[in-house]
Amino acid sequence: MRVFGIDCGTEYTGWGVVEVDDSGKRQRLVPIAAGAIKLHKKHKTPERLQQVYVELTGLITAYEPEVVAIEDVFFAANAKSALKLGHVRGVAMLAAASCGLQVAEYAPLSIKSAVVGYGLAAKEQVQFMVARLLDLEKAPEPADAADALAIAICHIHTAQTLLLQGGR
Amino acid sequence: MRVFGIDCGTEYTGWGVVEVDDSGKRQRLVPIAAGAIKLHKKHKTPERLQQVYVELTGLITAYEPEVVAIEDVFFAANAKSALKLGHVRGVAMLAAASCGLQVAEYAPLSIKSAVVGYGLAAKEQVQFMVARLLDLEKAPEPADAADALAIAICHIHTAQTLLLQGGR
Repeated sequence: MRVFGIDCGTEYTGWGVVEVDDSGKRQRLVPIAAGAIKLHKKHKTPERLQQVYVELTGLITAYEPEVVAIEDVFFAANAKSALKLGHVRGVAMLAAASCGLQVAEYAPLSIKSAVVGYGLAAKEQVQFMVARLLDLEKAPEPADAADALAIAICHIHTAQTLLLQGGR
Repeated sequence: MRVFGIDCGTEYTGWGVVEVDDSGKRQRLVPIAAGAIKLHKKHKTPERLQQVYVELTGLITAYEPEVVAIEDVFFAANAKSALKLGHVRGVAMLAAASCGLQVAEYAPLSIKSAVVGYGLAAKEQVQFMVARLLDLEKAPEPADAADALAIAICHIHTAQTLLLQGGR
């Protein structure tokens, strides 16, 4: 299974691709690629959204994941920032749908629980554990890329749990 | 000038096309078309956003406007509804950008002022005045279509004011 995680943001939108390698004795998480799309403040919103859409569809097409995982958002500082984040999130979900992929949404608590084992873990702990789980010397930068990998890892863990619950 | 107005919503997204006819003695606003995209509640968010994107780009391509006008949102019942509205709004702005068009944003107060002459006008007054300004027997339904026409009219009025201020 190959998962494309997206961490939506109005300044940086992180992305990360993680694959499960079942070939060895022990299942292994393999980091394929990660990065962040930097949105230019000088650009107008429609231009920025177009950049997110074009880059995400390009990356999804290039890395051929089977599913897209995205962070669910329940809170926001205020309605205005929620609206702005919603713009990017809507375009990210559209990018997945345009590539014919399903979108799985995970609450921040579930993502932290899946990666650190503790839902209220600090941002640094998530980054540390992402590097550890993917056998990387250090977490990829910017932090948004590491967060996107965490979302992808969360999907893999959750999918496996669901399979086990289904009695595989 | 031909303007494509969009009234974003999570259930219905209204659209309306208005043109300015300068051929007669007196300038006339001509309604070209209007309607609303109904989003199915049963569909998942990415599917719904894809529907909005596909339909809007299709309509924009078909009606060949010069500009897209959209309502600016400053308020929302809460952050969750702002996020949901943001999804649709982001995709609408992307549709305009994908068609190579600029997006003009107008506050609800400006739209009501432009159409009714009073920023705090009731929804029914807006619909009544849209029908009157466009010489229609009654406002198009659903209300979202009329609201989209109001946004387009607001852009035409504002663009003309800006031209006059520019000393035409």
